[in-house]
Amino acid sequence: MIIFGIDPGYGTTGFGIIKTDGQTLNVLDFGVITTSPKTDRVERVIETVKDLSALAKEFKPDQIAIEELFFSKNVSTAMQVAESRGAIIYEFSRQKYPIYQYKPNQVKMAVCGYGNAPKIQIQQMIKLMLNLDQIPKPDDAADALAIAICHAGHLKNQKLNLHD
Amino acid sequence: MIIFGIDPGYGTTGFGIIKTDGQTLNVLDFGVITTSPKTDRVERVIETVKDLSALAKEFKPDQIAIEELFFSKNVSTAMQVAESRGAIIYEFSRQKYPIYQYKPNQVKMAVCGYGNAPKIQIQQMIKLMLNLDQIPKPDDAADALAIAICHAGHLKNQKLNLHD
Repeated sequence: MIIFGIDPGYGTTGFGIIKTDGQTLNVLDFGVITTSPKTDRVERVIETVKDLSALAKEFKPDQIAIEELFFSKNVSTAMQVAESRGAIIYEFSRQKYPIYQYKPNQVKMAVCGYGNAPKIQIQQMIKLMLNLDQIPKPDDAADALAIAICHAGHLKNQKLNLHD
Repeated sequence: MIIFGIDPGYGTTGFGIIKTDGQTLNVLDFGVITTSPKTDRVERVIETVKDLSALAKEFKPDQIAIEELFFSKNVSTAMQVAESRGAIIYEFSRQKYPIYQYKPNQVKMAVCGYGNAPKIQIQQMIKLMLNLDQIPKPDDAADALAIAICHAGHLKNQKLNLHD
């Protein structure tokens, strides 16, 4: 099972692609897609979705996990991120990928066991869980890996529940 | 020139399609696309974009005019509308339609001559400008027609500027 984690953004979108057999987690790729502030707003959304689609074509994920938006203090930025997120979800739905959405506290809970875990603790847990040499950088890429790990955990729980 | 005006929404999206020769404005169609609150959030966005695409296929607009979002007091709803708007803009860009965006006060200014015009006055102006028997209903459809009219006005101004 290949999981494509996405931390949607406007200027910077994080992605993290992992493989799991239900027991172990392996990283296939992670990083960020950035768009230039000089580019037109619509064009930036198109570019982001195009780059994510290219990654999906390369890694052929079985499922996509994307972070739900929290209500930022900067409403203007939040709206731009929401537009980008809408376009991403739309495009992957159009391509028939199953999409799962998680709130930030669900992601923290899945990775660290509690919903208010600080960023550095989450990043250290990601490093451990994915057996990496160092903390994945930049932050948006680490966030996307955390979303993918969160989804892997939910799949495992669902499986366990079948035997209840 | 056929203009496809869109007032993006989550539960209800208004559309208004007009034809202009630079002098007169004629309505081709207007109405709303509604999605059921019982349907999944992602599914509602997909449905909305699909219905708008079908209208574009039918009326073959030359240009698309869509309202920019204002920052609602209800941030949760605003974010959902922003997601829907992002998916709409993404899909029409993908289909190579030229897209123009207008702020609510630009639309009011174009229809009524000032940016704080009340809704009923805008609706009466739309009725007059489009030579309709009555005020177009529902409100979201009227808003979409106003956006299309706004874009028609901007085109006319651009043309006039050429002769300056």
